[in-house]
Amino acid sequence: MIKAGIIGATGYAGGELVRLISQHNKLDISFLDSRSYATVEYSKVYPNLKNIIDDKCVSIDPDENLEDIDVLFTALPHGLSQEPVKKIFKKGKKVIDLSADFRLKNVDTYEKWYNTKHEAVDLLDEAIYGLSEIYSDKISKTQLVANPGCYPTGVLLSLYPLLKEKLVGGDRIIIDAKSGVSGAGRSVRDANLFSQCNENFRAYSIGTHRHTSEIEQELSIAAGKEVVVQFTPHLAPMTRGILSTVYLINNKNVSEKEINDTLDHYYDNQQFVRVLEEGEYPQTRAVYGSNYCDIGFKVDERTNNIIMISAIDNLVKGAAGQAVQNMNLMFGFDISEGLRQPPIWP
Amino acid sequence: MIKAGIIGATGYAGGELVRLISQHNKLDISFLDSRSYATVEYSKVYPNLKNIIDDKCVSIDPDENLEDIDVLFTALPHGLSQEPVKKIFKKGKKVIDLSADFRLKNVDTYEKWYNTKHEAVDLLDEAIYGLSEIYSDKISKTQLVANPGCYPTGVLLSLYPLLKEKLVGGDRIIIDAKSGVSGAGRSVRDANLFSQCNENFRAYSIGTHRHTSEIEQELSIAAGKEVVVQFTPHLAPMTRGILSTVYLINNKNVSEKEINDTLDHYYDNQQFVRVLEEGEYPQTRAVYGSNYCDIGFKVDERTNNIIMISAIDNLVKGAAGQAVQNMNLMFGFDISEGLRQPPIWP
Amino acid sequence: MIKAGIIGATGYAGGELVRLISQHNKLDISFLDSRSYATVEYSKVYPNLKNIIDDKCVSIDPDENLEDIDVLFTALPHGLSQEPVKKIFKKGKKVIDLSADFRLKNVDTYEKWYNTKHEAVDLLDEAIYGLSEIYSDKISKTQLVANPGCYPTGVLLSLYPLLKEKLVGGDRIIIDAKSGVSGAGRSVRDANLFSQCNENFRAYSIGTHRHTSEIEQELSIAAGKEVVVQFTPHLAPMTRGILSTVYLINNKNVSEKEINDTLDHYYDNQQFVRVLEEGEYPQTRAVYGSNYCDIGFKVDERTNNIIMISAIDNLVKGAAGQAVQNMNLMFGFDISEGLRQPPIWP
Amino acid sequence: MIKAGIIGATGYAGGELVRLISQHNKLDISFLDSRSYATVEYSKVYPNLKNIIDDKCVSIDPDENLEDIDVLFTALPHGLSQEPVKKIFKKGKKVIDLSADFRLKNVDTYEKWYNTKHEAVDLLDEAIYGLSEIYSDKISKTQLVANPGCYPTGVLLSLYPLLKEKLVGGDRIIIDAKSGVSGAGRSVRDANLFSQCNENFRAYSIGTHRHTSEIEQELSIAAGKEVVVQFTPHLAPMTRGILSTVYLINNKNVSEKEINDTLDHYYDNQQFVRVLEEGEYPQTRAVYGSNYCDIGFKVDERTNNIIMISAIDNLVKGAAGQAVQNMNLMFGFDISEGLRQPPIWP
Repeated sequence: MIKAGIIGATGYAGGELVRLISQHNKLDISFLDSRSYATVEYSKVYPNLKNIIDDKCVSIDPDENLEDIDVLFTALPHGLSQEPVKKIFKKGKKVIDLSADFRLKNVDTYEKWYNTKHEAVDLLDEAIYGLSEIYSDKISKTQLVANPGCYPTGVLLSLYPLLKEKLVGGDRIIIDAKSGVSGAGRSVRDANLFSQCNENFRAYSIGTHRHTSEIEQELSIAAGKEVVVQFTPHLAPMTRGILSTVYLINNKNVSEKEINDTLDHYYDNQQFVRVLEEGEYPQTRAVYGSNYCDIGFKVDERTNNIIMISAIDNLVKGAAGQAVQNMNLMFGFDISEGLRQPPIWP
Repeated sequence: MIKAGIIGATGYAGGELVRLISQHNKLDISFLDSRSYATVEYSKVYPNLKNIIDDKCVSIDPDENLEDIDVLFTALPHGLSQEPVKKIFKKGKKVIDLSADFRLKNVDTYEKWYNTKHEAVDLLDEAIYGLSEIYSDKISKTQLVANPGCYPTGVLLSLYPLLKEKLVGGDRIIIDAKSGVSGAGRSVRDANLFSQCNENFRAYSIGTHRHTSEIEQELSIAAGKEVVVQFTPHLAPMTRGILSTVYLINNKNVSEKEINDTLDHYYDNQQFVRVLEEGEYPQTRAVYGSNYCDIGFKVDERTNNIIMISAIDNLVKGAAGQAVQNMNLMFGFDISEGLRQPPIWP
Repeated sequence: MIKAGIIGATGYAGGELVRLISQHNKLDISFLDSRSYATVEYSKVYPNLKNIIDDKCVSIDPDENLEDIDVLFTALPHGLSQEPVKKIFKKGKKVIDLSADFRLKNVDTYEKWYNTKHEAVDLLDEAIYGLSEIYSDKISKTQLVANPGCYPTGVLLSLYPLLKEKLVGGDRIIIDAKSGVSGAGRSVRDANLFSQCNENFRAYSIGTHRHTSEIEQELSIAAGKEVVVQFTPHLAPMTRGILSTVYLINNKNVSEKEINDTLDHYYDNQQFVRVLEEGEYPQTRAVYGSNYCDIGFKVDERTNNIIMISAIDNLVKGAAGQAVQNMNLMFGFDISEGLRQPPIWP
Repeated sequence: MIKAGIIGATGYAGGELVRLISQHNKLDISFLDSRSYATVEYSKVYPNLKNIIDDKCVSIDPDENLEDIDVLFTALPHGLSQEPVKKIFKKGKKVIDLSADFRLKNVDTYEKWYNTKHEAVDLLDEAIYGLSEIYSDKISKTQLVANPGCYPTGVLLSLYPLLKEKLVGGDRIIIDAKSGVSGAGRSVRDANLFSQCNENFRAYSIGTHRHTSEIEQELSIAAGKEVVVQFTPHLAPMTRGILSTVYLINNKNVSEKEINDTLDHYYDNQQFVRVLEEGEYPQTRAVYGSNYCDIGFKVDERTNNIIMISAIDNLVKGAAGQAVQNMNLMFGFDISEGLRQPPIWP
C-alpha cells in the first residue's frame, strides 16, 4: 500500500477523491487537510462516508516532513496550489494538482486568463497535462501531473483525435457546454443556492471562462497550429454531469465512419472512453458517479458541420476520477483501480 | 366578452391556455375538447384549476355548428389540426393553431420535415406566422394564425432583427437550445419519466429536429436569401424554460451598441421582449410562468463571433401565451390582456 | 391607490411580496428597504421583475417621517422587526409583520422558543394573528397584523375547525411537514446549496422548531385547553411548497362526512381554501405560485386515526400572499386583489 | 463463480441488480430475462452499463432446464412471481424473489391486501423474509428468500429492535414515509412523468398501501402481539431514497441512551446499518447509491414521543442491494461482496 495526502480535502473534488480512494486497493489515506474544517471528523463534512473514513481533518504545513506520503493530491482553488506543490515536489514526492495552476505551459497565458502572478514558474516544464488517455506515457513517467479542468476533459477527449489526425482543421470551433452545479464547488454563494439554481438554466462567463485557455493550448498542440475556440459554459439544474456539444466545420468531407475509426483507434484499448454507436448520443446520466467519458457524433451533410458530443461526471472523470487514473499510471497500477464502480441509473 | 373553444385542451399547451384565459378579462371559454378525457371534469386533469375552471371536457365534432364561439384554439399534435382548422375556418371563425401544420409556407418543406401529406394546402396562404412582435400588423388582420413552435420563438426574436437589418449575414448559424421536459408535452413515454430525466442532460434530434424548417423559413425571409442553420435541441432536467445560445459570425464587425440599438428599435415598444444590459445574460427562471422573452448578447472580439442568448417559458411565450397575445392582436385587445402575471422567482 | 413600504424587501418573502403587489390594483410601492442591497436596482436582485419594478433598494431609518406610506410590511428575520414595527406603529401606520415577533401572545413563550428578549412587549396585545380565514373580522379592524409562519398556516387551516368544533380532542397530535428549500430564505449557507439539497431529503429541528409554539398557541385557543403537538419539519428537494400530514386520534368516531361538513362550514365562502373531494389528496404543485391552501383528509377506520393533509405555497399563502390578503382585509379591498393568479401546472 | 438468472431484469430493481452483480467477484450473470425488451441489448435499456454488460435480453420459459444457474432473482410485479418461483424452486435452485408474493406468511392477509389469489401457497412456509440484519441465520439456510419491500426495510430496521426488546409497546405507531420516484418503477404512467413529479410533493395510498401488511407482520412478530400501524407514503421530487419518520409513544420512559444501546447491540457488527450520533438525523443523500441504512432518533420529553428516522436508497438496500446481501448470506460469501461502493455525495 502506498500513502496519499490530500490538501483541500473538503471541497467537492476533495470529497470525491476520498470516496474513490476508499475503494482503492493499493492506496491509503495519510492525511486529509482542510483549512475550514481542521480537527473536525471528515464524516461530519461528508456524512456519506461515516464508518468508511474515520479520519479527522488536519491543517498541513507544507514545510513539514511529510515523510510517510508517497503521493500528494492538491484540490485547492487556483492560485493556492503553487506554494504547497513547489515545496512538496522538492521533497521528491509525486504530486497531482487538481487546480489550474500547472496546466498552462505559457506563464503569460496563465497570468492573463487567471489575472494573478505565477509563483512556481520553474515547475511548469515539469508538469504533464494529465489528460489520461492522450498523455498516458508521459504521465506514467512524471513526478507532477496537472490534472485537467472539468470542461476541457470531455471536450478534449472528443476533439483531440480529430485535430491530431487532421480530420478537421481548427477553424471556428464552437463549444457549448452544460454543467451541473457541483462544478461550482462547495462554495457558499447566492448563485449556488438551491432556490437560485433549481428550475433555472443560464449561460455564464461567455467568451471569458478560464478553461478556454486550457482547451486552446491542447487543441493547438493537436492541430500543430494555433487554435482559437468559442467556449460557452452553462449551468444546468442538476448536481453532476457535463455535456459538451461541439460544432466543427466539415471542410474535408469526413464521413461518420472515418470519425468512428479514428476514435476507435485512440480509445479501443481505453476502458474509460466509450464511443457510442451511430445515432446514439451521450447523456450525463449514463456516466453518473463514474470515470467514463461517453462520446457520440453526427456528420450533418445538410449543413456541412460535424457535431461532437461528450458526457462526463464532472467530479469523477472531470476531477477526482481522472486524478486517481493518473496516479494509477504514475505508480503502474491497473488503470481502473479504485474506479470500477459502474455509473448509476437512474 | 368573446368566447373561445379549445381543441386539445388537456395537453400541457392546452392546460396553460386554459390557465391564462381564466385571467383574461375579455374572453370566456366555450368548450374544452379532449379525446382522452371527454366527460371528465377539467380540474381532475389540472387540479391547480379546481374552483377556477368548473367545466367538463367534451369531445367536439368540427362539423358541428359551433355558433357560439368567436375564436378557436387548436392545441393538437401536428397532422391532426388540418381537418378541424379547415372546417372551422370555413365557418368564418378566427383560428389560432398551436401545431406545426400551418407554419411552413412551402408544402414540400412541410411534407419533407414532417413526413406526412398536408390535407389543407389551400389554407397555407391564409395563415400568418404568429411571431407576435415581428408580424403584429399581419396578425391583427388575419383569420388564421399559425402559432410558432417553442424553440423558434426564442431563437427568432433574438435573430430576426439582426438578419433583417443586415448586421449579420446568414452564414453558418449555430443554434444550441436547451429545453425543459414539459416541451415534450404530457405524452406518457419512457423518455419523459421523472427518473429518466432527473439529473440527466442530453441532446436529441441533432440536425433533424422539425423546428429547423420553421427557423430557416423565417430567417430566410429576414435575410432575403436562403439561410441554413445548425439546430441542436437538448433536454434539461427542469419542467419549464428554453434557453437558446446562438453563434453568428461577426463578419461586419458589428459592435454591442449596434446590436443593442437594433434590438431596442424592434422591441422598445414591445412589452414582452426585454433586452438585457451589457454583461447580463438571460436565465430561464427570470421568465418562469410568464410571456416574456429575455434577450442578451455578447460580441466576442477575440473570436469574431456574436453570441445571442434568449430565454422563454416554453409553455407561455413558446406556446399558450403567444397564442393569447396573438388573439389579443386579432381582436384589438390590449396586448397584455390575460398575460400580466410576472415571472415567479424563485 | 394606497402606498406601501417594505422593510426587508430582498429576502424571498420580500421578493414575493413585491411580485404580488406589482399586480395589485389598489396598492403602490413607496419604498423597498434592504440593508444588503441598498442603492442597487431591485430588478438586479430579482431579474424576473425587470421592466416591472424600476425602483432601487433603499435603506430606511424607522425614525424618518414616512408620511407617504399607508401600510408597512416588515419581512425581516425574527428579532429584527420589533424596533421598526414599534416606531412605525406609533406613527399610526398600519403594519403587517411577516416575522415571528408578534405572533405569540405570551412573552415568556416567545423568549423561551426564540431565545431572545422581546423589546416591544406592549404591542403583543395589539397584534392580531393573521390567519386570514379564521380571524378575518379581527384582522379587518386591527392596526397590526402578525402574519403567520409558513408551517402553521397550512397546519392550522386544516386543524383549527376540527378542534374548535370538538370533532377531535387535542391529544397526541402528530404533525409531519415537508417544505421546499425556499422556506429557508435566501440566506447563503452550506445547507442551502443546490448540491447539498438536490436529490436529498431530511428532517431537521425535530421537536424544537420554533413554529411549534405558534401552532400550539392557536390550537389551544381552538380547543379551549392546552394542546401540545409533535412537530417535525423536513426539507424536500424542491423550491416551493409545504405539504403537512397531520395525525389525529379519532376518539369521537367522526365520519369523513362530518369533517367535510365542518370544513365546508368554515371555508365555503373563503375562496383561498379548497376542500378536496373524498379520495383526493393535496399536492404542492396544485397550489404552486398561488394563495390557495388545499385540504384533504382520510378517516382510517382500521387504525382509528384521522389524517389531515394540507398543501400551500410557502412563499404565497405561507408568507407574502397571506400578508396581502390581510392587507386587503385591513383596507376593505376585495380579498383576492393582487392574488388572482392561478397555480401553475406543470 | 456461481451463476445467476434474473427474471424481470429491465425494471429499475432489475437494473440495479445487474449493476451490483457486475461488481460481484463471486457471481456471474447467466441470463437477463425481459418480456418488453427480449432480444434487445441490455445496454440499450441501461446505457450506463455499456461495455460493462454485453448480454442481450432474453425471454425465459420457467419450464426450461436452467441447469447452469445457481440462483434465480425474480424482479417482477406482485402476482407474476408465483409461477416462475414455484417452478424453479422445484428444480432445487435457490431463489430470491423481489416481489411481494412470498413476504406474507398468512395467505388471507396477502389476498386481502393484494386483492388477488395466491397460486403458490405451499411455498409460503419455505420462504424466509429477507430482512438481512434481523434474519441472517435463517436466510443463510433457506432456499427461498422473500426480499422485503422498500418501505418496510427502513422502517423495520429502525423499529424491530425497540419492539423486540420491549422498549416500546406497539400502540399507535405512526409511520410517515417519503420516497423518491424510482420507487414507482420504470412503469410508463402519467403520474410518473417528470413534469408531473418535479417541484411536487404528495401523499398517496393513505391507510391502504400494501406495504402496511408487511410492516405489521414483522412488528407483530417482534412485539409478540398484534401490532397495527398507520402508514402514509409520500412521493418526493427526487429519483432515489426513502426517509421514514416514525412516531412511537414513550410509555416506558426510555432514554436516548437506552435506544442507542439497543440499536448498537443489534447493529454493531452489521456494516450496512449505521446508527447516528445524538443530534444527527439521517438524510437520503448520505446513503445514495449504497446498501446502507442510516438510523437516527429523538426522545422528545416535552411530548413523550420517540421519533425514529431511517434513510435508505430504495433501489439498493430497499431492493437489489438487500437481495445481493441475502444471496451472500445464502452462499456464505462475504456480506459486502458486490456492495462495497460508498454512497455518492453530492
